[in-house]
Parts: sequence; structure tokens; C-alpha cells
Amino acid sequence: MSVTIRKIAVDLKLAVSTVSKALRDSHEISSETKQRVSDYASKLDYLPNPYASSLKKRRSCNIAVVLPEVADSFFSIAINGIESVAQEMGYHVMIYLTHEDSRREESILREFRSGRVDGVLMSVSGGSNHNGYVYSQCAKETPLVFFDRVCEDTHAVKVVTDDFESGYKAAEHLILKGCKRIGFLAMTGNLKIIENRLNGFRKALNDHGQEIDAGHLVYGTHDEQINFNILRGLLSETNRPDALVGSVEKITTQAYSVCNELNLLIPNHIKIVAFSSTQIATLLNPSLTTITQPAYEMGKTAAHLLFKILEKKKIDVDRVEVLPSILIERNSSR
Amino acid sequence: MSVTIRKIAVDLKLAVSTVSKALRDSHEISSETKQRVSDYASKLDYLPNPYASSLKKRRSCNIAVVLPEVADSFFSIAINGIESVAQEMGYHVMIYLTHEDSRREESILREFRSGRVDGVLMSVSGGSNHNGYVYSQCAKETPLVFFDRVCEDTHAVKVVTDDFESGYKAAEHLILKGCKRIGFLAMTGNLKIIENRLNGFRKALNDHGQEIDAGHLVYGTHDEQINFNILRGLLSETNRPDALVGSVEKITTQAYSVCNELNLLIPNHIKIVAFSSTQIATLLNPSLTTITQPAYEMGKTAAHLLFKILEKKKIDVDRVEVLPSILIERNSSR
Repeated sequence: MSVTIRKIAVDLKLAVSTVSKALRDSHEISSETKQRVSDYASKLDYLPNPYASSLKKRRSCNIAVVLPEVADSFFSIAINGIESVAQEMGYHVMIYLTHEDSRREESILREFRSGRVDGVLMSVSGGSNHNGYVYSQCAKETPLVFFDRVCEDTHAVKVVTDDFESGYKAAEHLILKGCKRIGFLAMTGNLKIIENRLNGFRKALNDHGQEIDAGHLVYGTHDEQINFNILRGLLSETNRPDALVGSVEKITTQAYSVCNELNLLIPNHIKIVAFSSTQIATLLNPSLTTITQPAYEMGKTAAHLLFKILEKKKIDVDRVEVLPSILIERNSSR
Repeated sequence: MSVTIRKIAVDLKLAVSTVSKALRDSHEISSETKQRVSDYASKLDYLPNPYASSLKKRRSCNIAVVLPEVADSFFSIAINGIESVAQEMGYHVMIYLTHEDSRREESILREFRSGRVDGVLMSVSGGSNHNGYVYSQCAKETPLVFFDRVCEDTHAVKVVTDDFESGYKAAEHLILKGCKRIGFLAMTGNLKIIENRLNGFRKALNDHGQEIDAGHLVYGTHDEQINFNILRGLLSETNRPDALVGSVEKITTQAYSVCNELNLLIPNHIKIVAFSSTQIATLLNPSLTTITQPAYEMGKTAAHLLFKILEKKKIDVDRVEVLPSILIERNSSR
């Protein structure tokens, strides 16, 4: 970092501004001078400061990825998809974790207003506050694409799977297996995707003349111990569910542990279908029937759309890209 | 982003340089003027461009985390540890994935020379080329801290667990369980940590009057299909191992699948101990006995050390911080 434009200017006996313009390929500088400057700069192994040139171009070449957490296979696979596109485009990926805390999410988004990043990809937190206003403010100032967990009220491009339909599919699969008392493991918080999954689930039950027992709809939290207690309560009842739909991966693996503890055999005593990426599903015993979202593809698609916006290509600001999720039957529902 | 220093200057009838200095709390400006500028800037909701101020301060307030992959529980937990420290220090975390490709790793590190980041935390790739020279170059120009996978030849602070001792512990645990033909699942590539684990493993066998059958030391790759074939070969032999030590998480879960396929019961027919973070270990069936590295603590420690260097605190450039890893016995070796 010791070679500066100043040194090049002094050594070549040129003005600093001439060197600077030559390196930026300005039309004001003769091609002969440009060649001299460029040759000498390569000889010295000169690298321009990226943030100096970002000030000129008003671009940082950084994009932000705002996620609830990274130790979750959906998000970590999605990051791979995003990173593959960013790398190709010469952009850098900054990761911000909200840990499902809406205040933290708000302060992260406020920072972007200062121009640290050129665009934002985000999956909203399931925290207690609704940050709709904050998302809208952010989207006004910095191109923003939501993926997976979106805020429907915000004018921004969205990449999702059809959660209503997926919830419907999960319930119908269990109904066709003969299940009569299907429970649903939801999550507390303001997550629209959980609500949509639950609504699809209810519709399937309805269409098949069933309904959910009020006590069989439970809401998990981000505290493992609380979830264990909730699940123990649910699965110890005499009238306990004969099947479960897990709306997120974490609470489903916790349900496996509780079944194990209570000697409930999966799938004999209780069948399970869950929203999950495949990685963990095949490792569980019995392997888990899943509604699987195309995590890598969702990350990639969201990043592609963001770069289209950054390249000023015309995209409808309310565009919603729906990628299909699939039900993969494994041993937990056989 | 529409409010600039220029606008503030025009509105307050001050020189641009005066406003700029006032906002930087320069001693050249009277406190009265500073107050006026600061009040007006807050009224307009003015935010300084972070990269403009980074040019002045020669700091970007970004740190890079360079990892082989993110869809691995060790690394994703380590990111959480790193991020918790960075957040506290007001720094931003940029994630770069090498995908175990040494050329890609090299080009990522070369980019840092331009000052995009203030410091680098990295776990080296297991690619085919040895990037020792590249790491040393990078460390000369940007503060660098290695964690987990380190390059021993590079003068840089390192945060590791004692891999030799951990390999020893894993083998001894199985020997004490009565195993006589213990295999080792290594990985191809230039990873010193795998070599250290293997050396510790060999030493334990030696100390107990055993040695590894040459055919029972296999090298996995990053191709799942190839690994399945290697593992099928290993576990179909008549003289197959009665125990395995898995040097990384991925090949161990693949070994589980192959055991399942070949109807080999764990732990009855074959016992398994593996290097792994706990998350997946408890989900496997049977649950996996692990040598567990303190991933979160390693990330946190590495980040703390990097910030000490950034704050110009005196740290021995070759300091090696060794965090203990622990053997957690579960059902796969009972």
C-alpha cells in the first residue's frame, strides 16, 4: 500500500491530477501519457484504493446480506448461492446477523443509509417489533431484495416459495397417510411465512373434513429449554397428535429429541413432516420427510435480481419471484 | 444520501472545509461553530459517507473472514463468535468463501492489498496448491489472524485446538473400548490439521502396541460420490475396521450412510468417533461421539486478537492461542 498516485506523479514528473486522470482513462489525457502511467503503475504494482474510486463512482462494490442467523442450513446454503453470483460480478458480500432481534435489525439497516453498501439482500427477523417502516426507508435509499422471509407491505422485489401451498401439501400428505390428529409447530413472532404455512395447513384439513385441535397448535420460541417443555406437554397428552408439521427446522429436531425421550416411535406412533433443507433431513433417524425450499437457487435468484437493479435494468419494484418447493417423502412419514 | 457537506456549508454560509472540520471535531474550529454545524446536520439527518471518512482515517471498519465454506457447522458457529465481537467494536464483517480452491483463495487475498478491509481472519483452504507465500504477503500488508486451519510457516497470530492431542484422545478412547482395527478417515489436500490429527492417532496406537492397517487409512475428497465409493470399499472388506476416527464432519456423516446401506450397526459392528461440532452430532442416530472444538470461542478469540492488533496493542506476531477441545462420549462408541 506504499505506492501512491503521488509517488507515480513525482517519479514521472507529472501532475498528480494527470496521473489520476490517466489511471481513470480520462479523455483529457493523451494516449501516450496514459500508456506511460499505466506501464509505470504496473511496474510498481500499484493498486488503487477501492474506497477512493468508490467515492468517484459512488459505488462501494459491496452488497449486504442481512439474515436472522447463519447456523441454519437454509441460510448457509443461500449464502453460497448469493456469494457465487457476487463473486462473478466482482462484488463483495457483507454478512449481518440480526439474531431475530428487531432492534438490532433496525440499527443494521440504518447504517446502510450512509452508502457502505450498494444493495441489500435480506430475510427479515422474527423479532417482536414490526420493522415495516424501517424496511421501506431502507428500500427507498438502497436497492433491496427480500428472500424467503419477506415484508409484504414493503415495495421491494421478493424471492419466495409458495408457503401457503407448501403448508397445504404437508398436511395433505399426512391426511392421505391416515393421520387424524395433526399438530402444527409454529413459531412466535411476526413471521408472515409461518402464518402462510399455517393457513395452507388449515385449508388442507378443512378440504378433508378435519380441523386442528386448539391444543395441537403450539408456538415455539428461540429458547431451546422452553421449546422442550412445550413439546413435552404436547406429546405427553393422552389425546396427543398422531402427526406433526414442523414450520421450521429447529423446532422439528427438538421434537425428534422429545419423541426419543418419551419413547414415541417415528413414524409408527407419530409421523412428522417439516420445512427443512435436505442436509439435516437425511442425517436424522428416521430420515425426515421435508418440504424443501431451493435454498441455493433462492440465494442466486435474489442476487441476480439485485444486480439487475444495480445495473439500472427495468424491474417492477413489486416483482415477486416464486420458486417451487418440493415434498420429499422419507422415513418419518412412511 | 442527498444531504452533503456542501449543502450544510451553503445553508449555514460557511466554507465546505469549515463544515468538514467541524464535523470531525477539529481543534481549528470554535466550539460555537461546531455546535451550529452539528445541530444543523442532525436536523437534516446528515450521514457522513463511511468511505470518505475511511480515506481520511485510512480505515474501512471492515474485516474479512475467509473460509473454505459456510455450510459447515464449525464455520457457521465460528462466524457467530466473530460477528459478536465485530458488532461490539463497530466493525463490519465481509465473508469470502474459497470452496477449498487455492487459486480462488489467492485471488481473494490479493484483493485485500488494496485496503478494502482493515484486517483478515482466515481458515486456510485444503486446495491442491500451497499458498504459504500468498498468506505471508497478505500478512505483511494487512493484520491477519488464522483460526482452526492455519499455515504454520506464516508469521501471524493463530488460534487453534491441539489437533495432535485430540487425534490421540480419539484413538485411545476406541482402544479402551476394545477396538483392534481402527481406521482413519483423512482428507486429501494440504491440511496440516488433518496431518496433526493423524499423527496423534498413530502415536496412541503405537503407545498401545497397535498400528494402522495401511488399507484402513483412506483419504476423502470434496466429491460426495467418490467418498461413498471409497467408504463402501473400506467397509465391505472381510478384514474391515471395527472402529473409525473421522477427521472432519462431512466424511463422517457419509460413513454413517454407508454403514446404513451395508447393514453395519453402529456401535455394535463398528464404533465411530469424529471431529465435529455438537449440533449435527446429537441429531445423528446413533448420536455421535465427538472431539468437539469450541467453534464459537475460537471465532471470538480470533476476532479479539485481531482487534488488539488493529488497536496497535503489542502482540507477539507468532502467538499461538491453543483452546482445548473435548471428547464427548455418545452412543456411536458405547
